Amino acid sequence: MSTATTTDNNNTIRAYAAMEAGGKLERYDFDAGELKVDEVEIAVSYCGICHSDLSIIDSEWGQSQYPVVAGHEIVGKVHRMGAGVKGLEIGQTVGLGWTSESCQHCDVCIEGKGNVCPKSVATIVGHSGGFADKVRAQWQWVIPLPAELDESKAGPLLCGGITVYRPIIQHQMDASKKVGVIGIGGLGHMALDFLNAWGCEVTAFSSSPEKYDEIREMGAHHIIDSKDKDALKAARSSLDLIISTVNVALDWNLYLSLLKPEGKLHYVGAVLKPLDVQAFSLISGAKAIAGSPTGTAAELRQMVQFAARAGVEPITEDYAMSDINEAIEHMRAGKARYRIVLKNDFA
Amino acid sequence: MSTATTTDNNNTIRAYAAMEAGGKLERYDFDAGELKVDEVEIAVSYCGICHSDLSIIDSEWGQSQYPVVAGHEIVGKVHRMGAGVKGLEIGQTVGLGWTSESCQHCDVCIEGKGNVCPKSVATIVGHSGGFADKVRAQWQWVIPLPAELDESKAGPLLCGGITVYRPIIQHQMDASKKVGVIGIGGLGHMALDFLNAWGCEVTAFSSSPEKYDEIREMGAHHIIDSKDKDALKAARSSLDLIISTVNVALDWNLYLSLLKPEGKLHYVGAVLKPLDVQAFSLISGAKAIAGSPTGTAAELRQMVQFAARAGVEPITEDYAMSDINEAIEHMRAGKARYRIVLKNDFA
Repeated sequence: MSTATTTDNNNTIRAYAAMEAGGKLERYDFDAGELKVDEVEIAVSYCGICHSDLSIIDSEWGQSQYPVVAGHEIVGKVHRMGAGVKGLEIGQTVGLGWTSESCQHCDVCIEGKGNVCPKSVATIVGHSGGFADKVRAQWQWVIPLPAELDESKAGPLLCGGITVYRPIIQHQMDASKKVGVIGIGGLGHMALDFLNAWGCEVTAFSSSPEKYDEIREMGAHHIIDSKDKDALKAARSSLDLIISTVNVALDWNLYLSLLKPEGKLHYVGAVLKPLDVQAFSLISGAKAIAGSPTGTAAELRQMVQFAARAGVEPITEDYAMSDINEAIEHMRAGKARYRIVLKNDFA
Repeated sequence: MSTATTTDNNNTIRAYAAMEAGGKLERYDFDAGELKVDEVEIAVSYCGICHSDLSIIDSEWGQSQYPVVAGHEIVGKVHRMGAGVKGLEIGQTVGLGWTSESCQHCDVCIEGKGNVCPKSVATIVGHSGGFADKVRAQWQWVIPLPAELDESKAGPLLCGGITVYRPIIQHQMDASKKVGVIGIGGLGHMALDFLNAWGCEVTAFSSSPEKYDEIREMGAHHIIDSKDKDALKAARSSLDLIISTVNVALDWNLYLSLLKPEGKLHYVGAVLKPLDVQAFSLISGAKAIAGSPTGTAAELRQMVQFAARAGVEPITEDYAMSDINEAIEHMRAGKARYRIVLKNDFA
């Protein structure tokens, strides 16, 4: 018995896949099997490219399962729904990010924190993502998008956006707070926008003077040259929160010294080198180092509502999905300004 | 004009001091000068010995100023008060811990968080501590002690006690939570007692099987042999908070794996080796590592009230203050069970 509520029982998904670590993407069609009772099938309209798509394509984190169909900053329309799906409608505009399934019954899931469920499924790990004409996900992770969001730009909010939004709410930032952002790229530029909209006093750390005018337009009130040790030292004890979006090792004890007492240094960038932090750097000012992976389904819903109301929007470059390898090369070359979005052009 | 409110204007303090790094303590009398307007002079009854007294005597942290009069787990009676002192009475039983002065006017002081004031004065750094017949401190840091506390045992609460109490309240632990303690010594045994009284499910990490019966009596519901990697792995994802009281480097990523999603690893032990933490260990489960130095004056007051009501009390060994070098040798040999308290026996 099919659980689908529409009569379209075409289970073929057309996609672009990496067949091996670091490989170019190739056209790849596959039978996705029968739609599960709690699954939604989304017809993909747009899909952003996130740095973690490259990490999974390249098997940097050792968890990739080939063929890899990456893409997890997805905007589309509800195309089919299993019989157990709640609160969504066929044709509705929705988004899908890093998480596409969680067990729903463990303690953290019952608390609404399925993004940290040990059995959660990442959209692009052992699951087929958004570089495709269709993608499937458990209904709780399919996020209704407000009409005010531009569908062609909203994709990056679903992963990059929630990733930088999460520390803002986790550490209970408000308009009285001073927040720094390390690394003004795909994630960092959205962090500046969110923090500015949140009312915070925003400092960008950047070693790219040619970007400074643009960084101010993104929402930074101050810019500190991250290669200027004196400028860094002058900012000592001034920030409530620093969000690090980079994946390279920096002098973390120095950045900890820029925090006020009880300040937080929050990692959303997957630095692979151990964080050589001194216990004293934490103890003496009652500071903390934290990290977080994207956000809960509730936080995703809250974030897209806030972005719509506040006009938070990533700066994007547009490619046709059929030009995906060109788009990825552009990104690998460090040239993306600041987030790439692919438009589904499957015939 | 003297600001003192009693007629005893004897400014001589009799003490035991280290004259050089690592030196034996010697009898040392000095003129403390006129009592300041906001200072209290405490007649010392008892003073605990904390590991950080040894660190300052030995100049391990590079901030010692000789002669060092250490001792910062002080119980005594208010002996003299400057004219600006509020809320205390001559003869009242009080305690004094790590902090004896803060600027009172910076932002964190105005918030009541003088323990992290950049200008705060530690009782034993550039200031004369409690291995003496008298000690002075700014009145806000002089903590009224409830009558229910045993004066001969309360000293260690003022530093060791608040140090382990602070993470419990900072991370909003309650009786539904599961908390681990690494290192069951001077600090750790008080942590077990506080956590048990707080209603938490308490796990001790210890590699000393000969202590296990005693550790259960201290309040641990479970004991994990910290040298047994399999036992550690079996406790994966089970704890809300781990408090580390040790000052040696452990496999911190392994301990992070014992935390539930959103769990915290909190350092109160001054590990000198950098914490080789992986960003992924934090990001994937939205975990954090934190540290804290003692507590605020308000937290000290709250802690002694709670200890009095709940019957939290350190296990102490008693020495006469004149036997201070013998007591320190006992402690350096790792034989203290579990906290040493000196009784003032100045004639």
